[in-house]
Amino acid sequence: MRSQWLVIGGARSGKSAYAERLAQSHPGELVYVATGEPGDEEMRSRIAHHRQRRGGKWRTIEEPIALAHVLRKECRAGRFVLVDCMTLWISNLLLADKPIPDAVEELCKLLPQLDGALVLVSNEVGLGIVPDNALARRFRDEAGFANQQIAAACSHVVFIVAGLPLRLKG
Amino acid sequence: MRSQWLVIGGARSGKSAYAERLAQSHPGELVYVATGEPGDEEMRSRIAHHRQRRGGKWRTIEEPIALAHVLRKECRAGRFVLVDCMTLWISNLLLADKPIPDAVEELCKLLPQLDGALVLVSNEVGLGIVPDNALARRFRDEAGFANQQIAAACSHVVFIVAGLPLRLKG
Amino acid sequence: MRSQWLVIGGARSGKSAYAERLAQSHPGELVYVATGEPGDEEMRSRIAHHRQRRGGKWRTIEEPIALAHVLRKECRAGRFVLVDCMTLWISNLLLADKPIPDAVEELCKLLPQLDGALVLVSNEVGLGIVPDNALARRFRDEAGFANQQIAAACSHVVFIVAGLPLRLKG
Repeated sequence: MRSQWLVIGGARSGKSAYAERLAQSHPGELVYVATGEPGDEEMRSRIAHHRQRRGGKWRTIEEPIALAHVLRKECRAGRFVLVDCMTLWISNLLLADKPIPDAVEELCKLLPQLDGALVLVSNEVGLGIVPDNALARRFRDEAGFANQQIAAACSHVVFIVAGLPLRLKG
Repeated sequence: MRSQWLVIGGARSGKSAYAERLAQSHPGELVYVATGEPGDEEMRSRIAHHRQRRGGKWRTIEEPIALAHVLRKECRAGRFVLVDCMTLWISNLLLADKPIPDAVEELCKLLPQLDGALVLVSNEVGLGIVPDNALARRFRDEAGFANQQIAAACSHVVFIVAGLPLRLKG
Repeated sequence: MRSQWLVIGGARSGKSAYAERLAQSHPGELVYVATGEPGDEEMRSRIAHHRQRRGGKWRTIEEPIALAHVLRKECRAGRFVLVDCMTLWISNLLLADKPIPDAVEELCKLLPQLDGALVLVSNEVGLGIVPDNALARRFRDEAGFANQQIAAACSHVVFIVAGLPLRLKG
């Protein structure tokens, strides 16, 4: 049985913790796909914080770009795969100058073919003032479009505010 | 019968597409009121993108400022009028140094007198960090107050996240 | 009977007005705890605006830092206490270089021991683009974590958009 979740929320909204709780009663193998790269001190500290909270039950895969490839390989019946997060993946694609709409489309076409439980964590970044710089505006646009398409392809979507879920779909 | 919607969401949240889908089964004439002015390349590209998605079924009116005047003229039984978007209208009023609270009040008093279906699209812009510059803070304040008053005057309000609606009213 | 609300929303979302309406039918004494300091003209004007809307029925206490101390003293059976807002409190702690997680934990441990009705107003600030400057990023992180913990400790949580509530808890 397929079950694909998009867990979307703001920075420090508790979306990762919510996504990890979805795995709690899962009997199968837990796979954590980290799209963030430990580039600077802040990011290293965030990654360490997340890793500590998850504990030792997860097998971790780091993949900044080739997400569809990893999911095709890892998602299967009886497994629980969590990707944290889609927004860093979009950011990585942007910085590597990859065509983002193509990558999002490839991913969204793949989703219905995958087996097992999959949870995608993403940031909503479009609810503030228009950013001053053009790259931030482009990132905001790409992330927003990606979230719409991924939400359309998932069976369940929740919006997290202050650690609590608002059910958008499923 | 009156039906007045506020469709509110972030940048690239799918709010315009959602608003346009509300028109899909409407039997009457479709009128699109664009408040944005094709000032720069980015805005021109956005306007072209929206126009292409809507297709040829809509009559389009461009009006950056005198929105109440246009709605008084265009809204009538059997018609579907979509305004995209209220936030650009607020921004236009601000840049033209018009009294925004007066304009919002005039609009909100007008709404109960209008016939037909009316959908107002707006941005929520207050969910990020306080902006550095004073004009952005003032815009954020004016847009937020306007959204509250327009929501109070509409029969239906939905908040769009990742293309999916959360029902706030109606 | 205990009733503890977190009312969370964006800037100019109508969260304070919503919080004040919760007090309308309350038969007991109304206490308003203001965490903002009238440091500059903008803040003075906001404080005056809020004070005018509340009218004369409230007893007002100003406390930028020692919030737990005030609540321990003021919250009791039959009273309605409103704190506006938690985000300014976090900001005050940050600027005074106080340990924020400790202060939040102290507050959250205190909540179950308090009697009467308590409403905490807070801003969601994590739904925009990552801020450029490190202090803003730290503030966003601290405010987000605080909101999660306070939401977990409250009996009721609502998210306000355009003046309208989305029920998150209770």
